[in-house]
Amino acid sequence: MYDIAIVGGGPAGLAAAINSRRRNKKTLVIGKEEYSFKLLQTHQIDNYPGLPEIGGKDLAQKLKEHALAGGAEFCKDEVQTISSDETVFTLVGRENMFQAKTLILAVGVALGNEIKGETEWIGKGVSYCATCDGMFFKGKKVALVGYIPEAVAEANFLAEVCAEVYFLPLFKNVENLNPRIKAISGKPLEIGGDSRVELFRTSKTEVKVDGVFIERSGRPADQLLADLQIEDGLIVTGPDQTTNLPGVFAAGDCTGRPWQIARAVGQGQVAALSAVHYLENLKELSPLLR
Amino acid sequence: MYDIAIVGGGPAGLAAAINSRRRNKKTLVIGKEEYSFKLLQTHQIDNYPGLPEIGGKDLAQKLKEHALAGGAEFCKDEVQTISSDETVFTLVGRENMFQAKTLILAVGVALGNEIKGETEWIGKGVSYCATCDGMFFKGKKVALVGYIPEAVAEANFLAEVCAEVYFLPLFKNVENLNPRIKAISGKPLEIGGDSRVELFRTSKTEVKVDGVFIERSGRPADQLLADLQIEDGLIVTGPDQTTNLPGVFAAGDCTGRPWQIARAVGQGQVAALSAVHYLENLKELSPLLR
Repeated sequence: MYDIAIVGGGPAGLAAAINSRRRNKKTLVIGKEEYSFKLLQTHQIDNYPGLPEIGGKDLAQKLKEHALAGGAEFCKDEVQTISSDETVFTLVGRENMFQAKTLILAVGVALGNEIKGETEWIGKGVSYCATCDGMFFKGKKVALVGYIPEAVAEANFLAEVCAEVYFLPLFKNVENLNPRIKAISGKPLEIGGDSRVELFRTSKTEVKVDGVFIERSGRPADQLLADLQIEDGLIVTGPDQTTNLPGVFAAGDCTGRPWQIARAVGQGQVAALSAVHYLENLKELSPLLR
Repeated sequence: MYDIAIVGGGPAGLAAAINSRRRNKKTLVIGKEEYSFKLLQTHQIDNYPGLPEIGGKDLAQKLKEHALAGGAEFCKDEVQTISSDETVFTLVGRENMFQAKTLILAVGVALGNEIKGETEWIGKGVSYCATCDGMFFKGKKVALVGYIPEAVAEANFLAEVCAEVYFLPLFKNVENLNPRIKAISGKPLEIGGDSRVELFRTSKTEVKVDGVFIERSGRPADQLLADLQIEDGLIVTGPDQTTNLPGVFAAGDCTGRPWQIARAVGQGQVAALSAVHYLENLKELSPLLR
């Protein structure tokens, strides 16, 4: 029986584990992979404060080492479903079952509607964050596939930095687009290249590019936990990272934009302190749990 | 003219500067000290994810170096007051004046404890700025509570203007005080009065005054900027770090608990992205600002 079970081994989950252990809580992190998949795919991160120009893998390792050094346990597994009775959450993974008094969901956002070639070229020209990676394409040609209106701001930023920006909007009413941007049309079909991204193909056109940015709405594992309040695919949280369910907290990308590592880390630490606070009240309410 | 002026050189402010520069915005950080006073006082920090067991000074330096390497400008000054017209914020420091299109408040929380009666009498005899308000007390009696050495200059200015100046220094090595000033001692206990301030009481003495000036490190946020929404001394923000004022964002301890470095850093980065978003809309609204 853990005090705090953290679902997700990315920055939010590991940061939560650091604070949970600082407060002496028995802490489990359940990660789908040994290290955050998204971090591993990121060549370089320039905006994690205090660790400039760090490699994604290097940051992933540092965060995990920090959590483990503090005494958190880590289990590689993928949680399939979670049930709860009055006092205990039961987490069923593909290979293990866990029990905990509180839950922190730090499950990130899934990358749905995959474009052919997308996964293959992550970190070699495919990116999900213009703010993070735009500068790597300074003076180069890029395409941006925008499933949501937020893509306009990203496209406009890229237009300031890149030689050429092709924009494929997959939503209606595109407004306020920088006139330097070239709109393209069709369905996204394929991202291709040899050792790096070289072209992007839709059902109507094909452009030569050095990179493809993809901006889409995230989808958390909303099937994980019954009655959890979700809006637009994102877990609804208060400023203290509480959800609508007592004893359940959420942090990081699964709670919304912007998708920033430092935001995820900060939220993870707040979620852990809120979970600790909840456990303290629980102790008072339920003498059996002391 | 800066795109983004950040008031506060602690973790929130520096993290905001990192992201602001990532988005190519002309960025100024105004810090009271070269490094966050609170960080400098912290021997060791164990829960800043990715940098375990780091010294406070070491972290302060890393954050500042990261922001400066990205191209942010830093100015050591203490902002006294901020005014705004439709499109520009004007920040008045002790030594400089700055202008910016957007503002990120990352002012932390004041370390000094509030004196009994202090908040109640703001604007009715309590002031935080002798330079700003001294002339209102011409020929009158005032007390000045000085938590920091800068209070000496303020006391000397008041001595030129007021009939009587009582000075309660709460720091060591008071030097160069105008001989007209009467030093008093004790702990500050209470500011009292009927419809306006009439007396100031310490643990050792009591003086009849028309006004009490308080000079401490950090200025209550609501004294900085008119109409900013404050609750319980904390700036009210949305999840995207917006405040009630367009173009004004806030991050870090000044927005509430828990007081965690990683929370401040995450919020700073979100505030910067929100400010960038605001600037983009501004550009569309005001062709003159392009």
